[in-house]
Amino acid sequence: MIFSSKLIEDAVNAFAQLPGIGKKTALRMVLHLLKEDELVTRAFSEAIAKMRKEVRFCPKCNNISDLDLCSICQDSSRDKQTICVVENIRDVIAIESTRQYNGLYQVIGGLLSPLDGIGPDQLKVSNLAERIQTDEVKELIMALSPTIEGDTTVYYINKLIQELPVTITGIARGISFGTELEYTDELTLARSIVKRLPINQAN
Amino acid sequence: MIFSSKLIEDAVNAFAQLPGIGKKTALRMVLHLLKEDELVTRAFSEAIAKMRKEVRFCPKCNNISDLDLCSICQDSSRDKQTICVVENIRDVIAIESTRQYNGLYQVIGGLLSPLDGIGPDQLKVSNLAERIQTDEVKELIMALSPTIEGDTTVYYINKLIQELPVTITGIARGISFGTELEYTDELTLARSIVKRLPINQAN
Repeated sequence: MIFSSKLIEDAVNAFAQLPGIGKKTALRMVLHLLKEDELVTRAFSEAIAKMRKEVRFCPKCNNISDLDLCSICQDSSRDKQTICVVENIRDVIAIESTRQYNGLYQVIGGLLSPLDGIGPDQLKVSNLAERIQTDEVKELIMALSPTIEGDTTVYYINKLIQELPVTITGIARGISFGTELEYTDELTLARSIVKRLPINQAN
Repeated sequence: MIFSSKLIEDAVNAFAQLPGIGKKTALRMVLHLLKEDELVTRAFSEAIAKMRKEVRFCPKCNNISDLDLCSICQDSSRDKQTICVVENIRDVIAIESTRQYNGLYQVIGGLLSPLDGIGPDQLKVSNLAERIQTDEVKELIMALSPTIEGDTTVYYINKLIQELPVTITGIARGISFGTELEYTDELTLARSIVKRLPINQAN
């Protein structure tokens, strides 16, 4: 693309760096901002810059945070004796959006994957044992992906805290609501039969 | 979606205002920026803010411009005696990217459409007659959409400058390169037969 304006070109290239955005989509966004009031663009640009400058990671659970401790760790109404172990911030947002969980989190920042160079040192789990002891945590919920990397990570964390008096649970796996049996993959279907529940607990 | 950080939420909402961007895509972009170096985000945010603040419209052709006159109008190597009439900036970028046109533009900013409230006063054509006289323009190329609105606009501009000694042409319409005949719409196919050219001019 040949732009007759360097300013537009720079703005398009800035947008085009983002994941999933090509030059044409980037141009559409830039022209959209150009059509709107200048204040809209200023607010946009400031929200992004401020976010990047001020966001930090919670020293307790490694979640994103506006303050020193994240809003979840600070919230005194939450159950400090349950910790849900998740891979990343996106998982926290997904679980929070269900409004079904009232405990704290441990965002470990990745899954063990020697092929990708992610070993135990890259996982943010060094303070986990200490947290369990300090807060007298009763339950650790493993909410990691059901992949080889996820299972390896669950095994590793298990070993790490095996001496501690904490119950380790995993989130339920099975058929999604709204999915028809015939289209479910074999592994999930098999597991959902093996792990069947009394009908009053199943729905 | 429930974010545990106001900063992230603001940034996601800023992205989600853009055309074609939902909350999930916006979150993906924000997390991408969060992963990159802080300088990347600063450069991103500054490019957008600078673009919106400093971009202006060329008083001659109404194209976007970094300086008083746009880079196309300023370029002395371009043919000032040919003007291509286009609807918007996107069309200028598309034509420039072909590297096949060396004249100037007139960006009229819309097409006549009484239903959408766009009348002759909304079109940026008031200086067109003057430009044609001052620069002794020989050819005016109409590169507007082949719609009712486009045709009406062409007709209107024709009337506006009918007294002036300028040749008015339209860009060629026909079968796209790479399109198979059987999938072409009837109107285009019919027109491409009626407007056939000697074979040495056709390709």
